[in-house]
This record gives sequence, C-alpha cells and structure tokens, in this order.
Amino acid sequence: MTDKKVIRQRLRMLRTAMREAGVDYYLVPTADFHNSEYVSSYFKEREFLSGFTGSAGTLVISQEEAGLWTDGRYFVQAQRELEDTGISLYRQQEEGVPDIPEWLCQNMWEGQSLGFDGRVVTAEFGRRLETALSEKRIRFVWERDLVDSIWQDRPAFPCSRAEAVPAEYCGESVAQKLEKVRKKMKENRVSALFISKLDDLMWLFNLRGNDVAFNPVLMSYGFITETDAYIFLQAGSLHKETLVCMREAGVWIRDYWSIVPFLQEYFPAGRRNQGILMYDVRNVSYAMYRIFWNYGSCREGVSPTELLKAVKTETELAFIRKIYLKDSIAVTKFIYWVKHAVKEQSLTEYSAAEYLDSLRGGIPEFLGVSFPTISAYMENGAMMHYEADASACAALEAAGLLLVDSGGQYLGGTTDVTRTIALGDVTQEMKEHFTAVASGMLRLSEAKFLYGCTGRNLDILARGPLWDMGMDYKCGTGHGVGYMLNVHEGPQSIRWRYVRSVPEAVLEEGMLVTDEPGVYLEGQYGIRTENVLEVKQGVRSADGQFMEFAPLTFVPIDLDAILPERMTQRDREALNRYHGMVYEKISPYLTEAEKEWLEEVTRAV
Amino acid sequence: MTDKKVIRQRLRMLRTAMREAGVDYYLVPTADFHNSEYVSSYFKEREFLSGFTGSAGTLVISQEEAGLWTDGRYFVQAQRELEDTGISLYRQQEEGVPDIPEWLCQNMWEGQSLGFDGRVVTAEFGRRLETALSEKRIRFVWERDLVDSIWQDRPAFPCSRAEAVPAEYCGESVAQKLEKVRKKMKENRVSALFISKLDDLMWLFNLRGNDVAFNPVLMSYGFITETDAYIFLQAGSLHKETLVCMREAGVWIRDYWSIVPFLQEYFPAGRRNQGILMYDVRNVSYAMYRIFWNYGSCREGVSPTELLKAVKTETELAFIRKIYLKDSIAVTKFIYWVKHAVKEQSLTEYSAAEYLDSLRGGIPEFLGVSFPTISAYMENGAMMHYEADASACAALEAAGLLLVDSGGQYLGGTTDVTRTIALGDVTQEMKEHFTAVASGMLRLSEAKFLYGCTGRNLDILARGPLWDMGMDYKCGTGHGVGYMLNVHEGPQSIRWRYVRSVPEAVLEEGMLVTDEPGVYLEGQYGIRTENVLEVKQGVRSADGQFMEFAPLTFVPIDLDAILPERMTQRDREALNRYHGMVYEKISPYLTEAEKEWLEEVTRAV
Repeated sequence: MTDKKVIRQRLRMLRTAMREAGVDYYLVPTADFHNSEYVSSYFKEREFLSGFTGSAGTLVISQEEAGLWTDGRYFVQAQRELEDTGISLYRQQEEGVPDIPEWLCQNMWEGQSLGFDGRVVTAEFGRRLETALSEKRIRFVWERDLVDSIWQDRPAFPCSRAEAVPAEYCGESVAQKLEKVRKKMKENRVSALFISKLDDLMWLFNLRGNDVAFNPVLMSYGFITETDAYIFLQAGSLHKETLVCMREAGVWIRDYWSIVPFLQEYFPAGRRNQGILMYDVRNVSYAMYRIFWNYGSCREGVSPTELLKAVKTETELAFIRKIYLKDSIAVTKFIYWVKHAVKEQSLTEYSAAEYLDSLRGGIPEFLGVSFPTISAYMENGAMMHYEADASACAALEAAGLLLVDSGGQYLGGTTDVTRTIALGDVTQEMKEHFTAVASGMLRLSEAKFLYGCTGRNLDILARGPLWDMGMDYKCGTGHGVGYMLNVHEGPQSIRWRYVRSVPEAVLEEGMLVTDEPGVYLEGQYGIRTENVLEVKQGVRSADGQFMEFAPLTFVPIDLDAILPERMTQRDREALNRYHGMVYEKISPYLTEAEKEWLEEVTRAV
Repeated sequence: MTDKKVIRQRLRMLRTAMREAGVDYYLVPTADFHNSEYVSSYFKEREFLSGFTGSAGTLVISQEEAGLWTDGRYFVQAQRELEDTGISLYRQQEEGVPDIPEWLCQNMWEGQSLGFDGRVVTAEFGRRLETALSEKRIRFVWERDLVDSIWQDRPAFPCSRAEAVPAEYCGESVAQKLEKVRKKMKENRVSALFISKLDDLMWLFNLRGNDVAFNPVLMSYGFITETDAYIFLQAGSLHKETLVCMREAGVWIRDYWSIVPFLQEYFPAGRRNQGILMYDVRNVSYAMYRIFWNYGSCREGVSPTELLKAVKTETELAFIRKIYLKDSIAVTKFIYWVKHAVKEQSLTEYSAAEYLDSLRGGIPEFLGVSFPTISAYMENGAMMHYEADASACAALEAAGLLLVDSGGQYLGGTTDVTRTIALGDVTQEMKEHFTAVASGMLRLSEAKFLYGCTGRNLDILARGPLWDMGMDYKCGTGHGVGYMLNVHEGPQSIRWRYVRSVPEAVLEEGMLVTDEPGVYLEGQYGIRTENVLEVKQGVRSADGQFMEFAPLTFVPIDLDAILPERMTQRDREALNRYHGMVYEKISPYLTEAEKEWLEEVTRAV
C-alpha cells in the first residue's frame, strides 16, 4: 500500500496544477483511451493519486474535497486504502449516495470549471456530465491530462510488437473484410468509418498485440473510407513484417499519435460535402466525440465490424473446435487432479489456479490466460469476480464447493469455461442449487429456435429452474467470445431484462455464446456451470429456418452435486447425452486412471 | 353481390367528382375515424365502390386505372367479386407486387395530387405516403370525402345510446382515473392529452356504447388538460342520465363533430406557450395529425390510458373471474353437446356456432359475442380468421378436429377461449400436434418470472414444443383482453419477434393475457388451445419480486387428442392439475350426465 503521506502529497501537487490550469474540479476515471476492459499501469492515474488499487473507481478532486466512487466489490478494500488520505468513499448504488453527475451538480458553483482528460472519459459519460451540469453553466476543460505533469516515474505507454495473424489462422483476408465493411457502409450511406474499439481493429486488420492485459490487442485507431483504409499504430509497435503485411493488404499506416490532426485535416471547415462519417458512441472517448461534434456531418451508429467479427468463419470455427477440445482436456484433468489432491495435500485457491494454468501452459498453442483464473472456494465463490491472492486466500478442504472460471488465449481460439467442483461432502441445499444450475445450462444448450431470435427470447430457458425456486442471478446468462481476441465480445448476449435503448442482436450462425447460469449466496457459496456454445443452423421447414446450439466445451458436470430426482426426465437425458459426448471426445487423451474416473463421472443418471 | 354495372357506374361518378375536385388519384381504405377493429356500414366506402366485401382492403382510383390491395385471406373472393369491374387485384405481400406507396410512386407524375379522406387514413400510413411521394412533389388533398357526394343511400353514421357503467362494475371512478392520467401527464411533462382510441375513452369515462360491432364503444374523442376533461359525443348518443353522470364526474361534454374547431381554438397561432399536447400517433387519423402538425408544440407518445386500462382493479378482477367461470361452463357444456350430437344429428360449423352462442345467451349477464364465433372444421381451422357462412359451410362429421374460438361480452367482463375438439377418430399426427400445442399452452401458463419480464421473454415457453418439432405458428401467442370492452387490447402481448421500434410492455399484476399456441396446416386442419391468464404476484425473495399466471378459463382440453407419452412428466402434471381445477370449478353447474362425462374427460393421465 502506498504511504498515506505520499498520497496526500500527490493530491496537493494536483491541486496546485488545477489552480494553475484554472480548473475547479478534476475528475480521474479508471480507463484507457479505448475503454478497454483492463487498464495497463500507464493509465492507473486514479490509483496513483488515491492509493486505491481496485479495478474500478473514479476520483473527483476540488481544492476542498476529494471523493472516490466505487462499487460493492471494493467497499471494504477502498475504506482501508483511503484511510488518512482525506479522500471520502462514495458507495455506488447504495441508497442516498449521489452518483458523480448528481454530486457535481450539488457541489459546483455556477460558472465553475470541470477538468478531466477527455481521452479517458467515454463520450457517453461525458454527455451525462454535460446534461447534468448544463444548468450551472459549467465549463469543461477536457484537453489536458493534469496528472501527467506530477507523475514523475509514470510507467511507459503500452507498446507491444504488432504481430500479423498467420495466414492459415485468418478467417478472411484484410481485403475481404474491408469489402464487407464497405458494403455495410454503403448500405448505411456513410462514406467514412472511424473505429476506436481495439478488438474490432485487430479483427479487421488481422493483427494481434499485447497492449492490454488478457486482450491480445494493440493501441490503435482505424479510419475507413470508400477507397482507403488507415490504421494508426505506434512506431514502436511496427516492424518490417507488419509494414509489408499491411502494404500488401492496401492499408495505410499512420502514427497512433497523429489521429487528432488526421481527423482535423479530414474535417476542414469548408469541406463538409464529402459525405457522412460514422462512429460508435459507445466506444469513443469524449475527446474524439468533441472533434466529431465540432466538425459536422457525422452519424452515430454501430460499427459493422462488431457483427462481422462476431460471426466466425468456417476456418475460424475449425480452429476454435480443436482448441476448445484441448482446453476441455486440460480442465477435465484439473478436475480429476483437484478432487483427488485435496484429500492428500494442502491446497489453496491460488495453488489450484496455478495448477490449472500450468495444465493449459502445456498445450503447444497456449499464449496466456484469457482473464485472471477465478478459483473461489465456498463463500468466495459468491463473489462473481473474485481473484485469489497468493498471500491471502482460502485453503481448500475436502468438502464443499470450489468454483473455477478460467480460459486461455491460444493460437486458434479464446476459451472460457466454468465448473463448480464438489471437493467432498456437499449439503442437500448445495445439491439442489447445483442441479437447478445444471438443468438451466442444459436447457439453453438444447434450445431449438426460429432464426430471428435474440438472447432475450432464450434467457428464460437457462434461468427457469432457478426462477421456479424463487431464485435468480444478478447478471446476464451469456456473452459472445472472441477468436484469439477478447473473451467478452458483442453484440450478441443472453439476458432477459428489457432496456429499450439497447439494441438486441439476432443469433447468427457462427456466433459463439456462453451459457452460464449460477447461484450466488453471499457468505455461503457460489455455483456456476458454463459452456461455450456455437450457433448453428438447424432444420429448415415450411415454417422457417430453425437455429440450435452445439457445445464447444466438453468437461464433466460434477455428478457428486447432482440430484437426478430433481431433474426432469428430459434434462436427465440431456445431461446423459452431454456426458456421453464428453467421454467420447476427452477420454482418448487421458491416462488410464483419469479415463477410468471419467467413465465413472460421466455415467448416465 | 352488387351488380358489376352498378360498380362501374359508381367508379365513373367518383372519377367525375375527382376531376371536379382536381384530384388525380383517390385512395379509399377500410377504416373508421378511430382505426377500429371493425368497420360499420357507414364506413364501407371501399365496398360501396368496388363490390369487394372482405374485411380488409384499400382501393386506389385514377382516371385510367383502379386497383384493390388485399391480403391472402381474400385473394379468391376478391378475384371473383372484382371481375368485370375494371378493378385490378393486387395481392399484398406476394413477390413482385408493389405496395400502395410504391405503386403510387411508380405511377403518379410529378406534381399530381393524391386525394383521400384524411379522417379514415391513419397518421402512420399517411406519413408513409408522404415519405414515398415527397420526391415527386405530390400534393395531398385530404380534407374531403369524395365518395360521400355520390353515395345516395349511405347508411347512417353509427350513433348508439351512451350508457354509464353501473357504479358497482366500475373499477374506479372517472375522477380517480383522471387523477392517475394527470399524474402520468405530469411525469411526461405534457399539459394536454388528446385521445382518439375508443376503448381508452370508454375506460376513462366509464361509458359504453354500441357504435362498433363487437366493441362496446361510442364514437368519441377526449381531451384532458391539467384542470379540465372533455368528452366529444354525438348529440344522438346523449340522454339525461349520461349528462348527469358526466357532470358529476366533472367532465365537459362537447359535440363529437366539434372536435376540429375545438382543437383549432386550442391552438391559436399566437398561443404556443401553453404547454405541450400529447397524442398517440398509432391511433390518430392523418387529418388529426395534420392539425397537430400545423399548430406547434405537440409530442407523440403512448397515452397513459392504455397501460392504466390494461391493469385491472380488484373490483374488475372479481367480476372477471365470475364471468369467466360462467363462460367456461357454457363452453364446457357445448363441448359435451357437440361431441355427442355429432354422432346423432347432422351438424354444420354454423349450427354448432349457433348452439354455442345460444348457451352464452342463457347467461343473464350476456350482452353479445365479443367477436364472430369461429367454428372451423378440419381444413377451415387452418385459416386463422375463418367465419362460417350459414349458407355455405362445412358439415361436421364424427371424426377429425373442430376448432372453436369464441367469446362473450358480459356485464362483468369480456371473454375469449379456444378449444379444438376431436369429433371422433383423429390421426396420430393430429394427436402429436394437439399434444404439442397443449404442452406449450400449459408451459406458458405455469411460468414463474421476475417482475420486469415482457411477453418476449416468455413466448418460447408456449412455442417451444412446436419449435422442437421444427414447426411454428405465424402469429403472436397472446394479447391483452378488455373489461367489458374490446377483446384485443394492448399494450402487453406474448410474441417472440424483435422489432426495435415497437416498445414492449412489462407484465404487470392485474393484466390479462391470452395464451394461444396453435398448429395451422393449410388444406388439412387447424389446432388452437387458448386460455386467458391473469398476471399475479408470486413469491418475493431476496432476488426480487416474482410473477406468475393464474388461469381464468376452465374448460377441458380434449384428452381424445392427447398423447400422454409425448408429454414430459412435468407437462402431464400441469395438465392434470389444470383438469382437476376444471372439474372442481365447473362440475357443480352441470347436469348429472355432463358431470359424469366431465369427470371422465378431466381424469389424470
């Protein structure tokens, strides 16, 4: 933990910088220029200023006050880390706690100024601030990063080597993808497309990098016109092969840091007639938004890259199926190991996760984990994003439930799988909940549905067994998964709640989607069973084209926690069918002892 | 059928009127001033001009051409009725057939004029015409009804007596309803609300009438401000009791025909600062829309009356439950009768429907049917809106399936129920389909779901058994039902298809919704099983407020067409539970013979 004196010193320096810049309030979120899921050290200004190390939180500073907003996952940790810093904790979504726009509206005086680095604030949040503060005529100072000047030993800006995806792994060439993107641009009557979402850019240009933890992406921007395509990359990322490869694809390379002057040149005052530029307001920073907003004929929309990326090609699917098999073998071996080892040696959540990571590490195509492995024993499993700390984590006992949610980045795919493992005796209640979760997972996986359905049509299949018991989980049932890219991907999802402003994506053949219902009982235990499913065409009848899922994950569901008599005949049949496939696909790759065990744990019930 | 010479003569007269009015093309839809579901004789201009008697269709006339657009239900009939009239038939939604806006765009010359009576064209369709014809600078002449001048013996404008709903049957007083409406107006920041939807008006003012077939409504408009409420009624509808009743409720009565001058007075050019007026574009005629469009600060939105009307009060629900019981007894007696009588006497679809109507007629509270009784044998059942004709309908045999969809208007409620009845032997395939339909109906009926769900979350429960067989029905699964009002009511519905522009309504406690999956095999047979469900609160747990349904309909589902072995154990249990309730609730009101039969046909399977 950073010394509290150091934190107070940093806040003093920032306040001096604010006075010099004429800024009354300064806001520091936790984000990079691309609203990535993970933030690299360079972007951890909020942690640098406050000492709070959680993954989410926003700091607001004035000459008199300082407040940090974070969510329920971090209340205890933030309380401790903020002590003696002079920073007040604002518990997000607790009753009576104002959110940041409300708080600013209550505290700022008319005509004051609000500063922030517009590159790390999303356009969406910036607009919320504008709306909340318009009546008070607050001036926005968004062009400067005031923290940079006081952060002496700031880590370097992330800049990994740009790697071209090997040709045989590419679903399609850059030229083919650009043709599809341009076709969609034409349909939408836009003549230029600005892209700032990093995984969309990696997909489009068949590049990969390592600038964001767990996400194999490069800091970049893209700009596509009817005739030209530009990618903006850091000079340090480039090497000869990338240059050759981009040149062959007819893509212009520009410097990452030249995006603003490039756009300003594209939008000169007198040249508004060159057509409409489209950008996705969900993925654009406030700074970019202000450029567009100043310069005219723009349209907000969903970048066509999002849907195109989500629909995997046959080439991609062939690699994905192979990699999911290898990944499933590793997870199956891990379950065999942990169920035996927990009786013989002392294990912790962390050491179990390490063992699983090492099994994945043995797969030749393995590049790294796709997110921090969640290994959560009993009550820790009730926290959806728990990450075991080597120095302070739970010891595993030969009883109760261990929830393991993990995935890998491989040459050939990105995986995501969760199994909850009975380490020994489990209670009747745990079994009831485990059985309901397994039934829900299987029912969604078995769905047959007409083409045109979205995740909202199907969510009740996964949630039904829990809803029948008056229970629910407070998250979606499923998300898309990238191909050698981010483990969380849109536009498809499986959720139930109706939000009119959020468009729904039809489930298309070739999409991947996770199927992960769960039970989370605070202070007790957590259960989640997650398979990744591939969307496939089913029968085509006089009534239309039907769709269905095929599982990509083949890992046993722990029968030690299943109550077959609590399942419907149909769900039992689905479980037996799934376990039959697991045995058939995985057993050839196991030791004799593992194989014998797998036969037993995939028996029909 | 009207003599073809007469039709040609009428078209000539209209063309003369068009020339005199300077109108190049004239459009005649099938609608009244309020876009009601049924059109009374006064409004049948399209039939008067074309001789085509179907319930849906639009005629377009120029000096050279005449075309009628109608849908698949009427292709054969329209072909016959239009013969020798000079009117071409345009088969809607057939490939290569332009719709009306497209056709007009192709055929009209730049600067020509299109005439129609703006009062019978919906704002939505009028705007589509505007969009399609804007490039050709077509002038719209919408203020005149050119047919009126040539229709000598035109039927009278519908004008039934306005009846106040007896106090004990009112869910709430007019004053209470106005308070709720004004609260919603305030939330939406509108200071005036214009209402043209007839059932909303009847609900709000606790009035009923008989101006539209099957819908107990009055031709009327409503105008609500923060302080005043106006209802616009025909002088002929009024009588002393209505006047007293409206006066007591603090409602101003104005003449129905004075709505336009009233609105024009409300919107004088210089008085735009009196706040925003809201109207529902889905229910407003093009003529009204043009008034609003001319005069300024208006907002399009959903009238709060729609949702308030849909959520039934406890008073209403108590009456509804009683009436549904009586209605269920009548339908159960009908099933007993038809299954026996078909073996002994010669029956037709029409005579069966007459018998059912007569059973309903024996209920003291009965006022009329809520829609034309559908009695459809075998292949006629595959037509969703079939209406048997006394002079030409199918004879019933002691075999196959009879689909009967019917409902009543009662003092105390509006009903809607469908049963498909095995009149004797039915094939294995019919049984398979019947069983899937029954399973789907029961699954939706048994759903437990979190508050916040809409029909799109639940539709797959009803459709699932058919989707699993690669089958579907081409309509929604369910709609709302009025209270002593229209049998089709919004805003709730059970459907699956995603249409971004159509807002979804959350299922609220006290709503009614139909649950009516089906199988429709053209030329073979139709199957539909329909219950009306009441939305109720279920358990409230740590995870939220759960909702569930309770059936209002208690009529046996024909076990002669059920294959219990094709149902899941759970579906069988649901069927047995439902049949247990049917026997318990209905048997006390039956003869000994009927009772004995009911016990047999509601036995557990």
